[in-house]
Amino acid sequence: MKSHTSYLWFSTPGRRDYINITSAVEEELVKSGVSEGLCLVNAMHITASVYINDDESGLIQDYDDWLEQLAPHEPISRYRHNLTGEDNADAHHKRQIMGREVVVAVTGGRLDLGPWEQIFYGEFDGRRKKRILIKIIGE
Amino acid sequence: MKSHTSYLWFSTPGRRDYINITSAVEEELVKSGVSEGLCLVNAMHITASVYINDDESGLIQDYDDWLEQLAPHEPISRYRHNLTGEDNADAHHKRQIMGREVVVAVTGGRLDLGPWEQIFYGEFDGRRKKRILIKIIGE
Amino acid sequence: MKSHTSYLWFSTPGRRDYINITSAVEEELVKSGVSEGLCLVNAMHITASVYINDDESGLIQDYDDWLEQLAPHEPISRYRHNLTGEDNADAHHKRQIMGREVVVAVTGGRLDLGPWEQIFYGEFDGRRKKRILIKIIGE
Repeated sequence: MKSHTSYLWFSTPGRRDYINITSAVEEELVKSGVSEGLCLVNAMHITASVYINDDESGLIQDYDDWLEQLAPHEPISRYRHNLTGEDNADAHHKRQIMGREVVVAVTGGRLDLGPWEQIFYGEFDGRRKKRILIKIIGE
Repeated sequence: MKSHTSYLWFSTPGRRDYINITSAVEEELVKSGVSEGLCLVNAMHITASVYINDDESGLIQDYDDWLEQLAPHEPISRYRHNLTGEDNADAHHKRQIMGREVVVAVTGGRLDLGPWEQIFYGEFDGRRKKRILIKIIGE
Repeated sequence: MKSHTSYLWFSTPGRRDYINITSAVEEELVKSGVSEGLCLVNAMHITASVYINDDESGLIQDYDDWLEQLAPHEPISRYRHNLTGEDNADAHHKRQIMGREVVVAVTGGRLDLGPWEQIFYGEFDGRRKKRILIKIIGE
């Protein structure tokens, strides 16, 4: 069995951002030499997500609005977590909607994605350095 | 390490539908010859889900109502994504709630599921051909 | 390829509870002897979650309030599922928000977690014995 581990760093200029990381994951798959297996991609911070959906700017704005409806950033005092001095409780909630991780099949040396599947990093509390992890196992 | 890959096609008559695919996944596990490992099942389209929950008709209707509350189909103009000519922005949202994929343990040659766990395909924008992927790795 | 399977039992005193299981998963990893691979941790019951987030009591109370807003327990008659004689339909909904499972990378013989990542069992219909599954594969 082969395995390959890689970490990607992000520091987004705004509080929330959505970054297509599909090509970066594909590059790691090439390095891994795995042709049949599984590829895990996960946020390593608990106010961010890795998810798969469409790279369409209108949809991304729709997601952002919807997450803000489901778990508003303000008032900060809405959340007990913010009593710790943080202001990012909403980000911990938004990340649960969008998920921590994706597991993608590797088939014939490629990410076995559907026609519109794109892997995204969803940042909900940016403006600092944060990591994702890519782990590929197989043969 | 063994690996097995299979694709299942669906074309549901209505916009939304919930299909128990547990037996179909079990069939692929038998074909794989894997006795210890992991089984990934994921939607390959971004307006559909694979999830695990109860095969109880009342609950499925509850889910459908709840998803429609959280991300209503209409008005179509509610979503920027629909400005592209699509009318399925709600389906992209519903799928994030229910998730893209499940990973199931394989133990002793069987899907290692709890007593009520059933694997479902959740379709939120049907009436066309769409695929799921089954990837099994192990020994 | 090595594989290791373990089941943990829980019976929480209240209806809803949130239990940090990171150490228990780490113990199973040591037993597995796996140094590079993947670790699946999933609820085996469909009214419970395994998720990764912060071990901070304010945030956990925030989650509990938020889940109750998104899928209230009462009135029981709100849900068709409860016509079966159950009163736990809300728990089936809360679990979909928080998720069934996590997949964690194993690197250098350790769970490859970010600085604040903690693995939690989220119970939404407690007061009875329920299981989670840990499956570790790799080398």
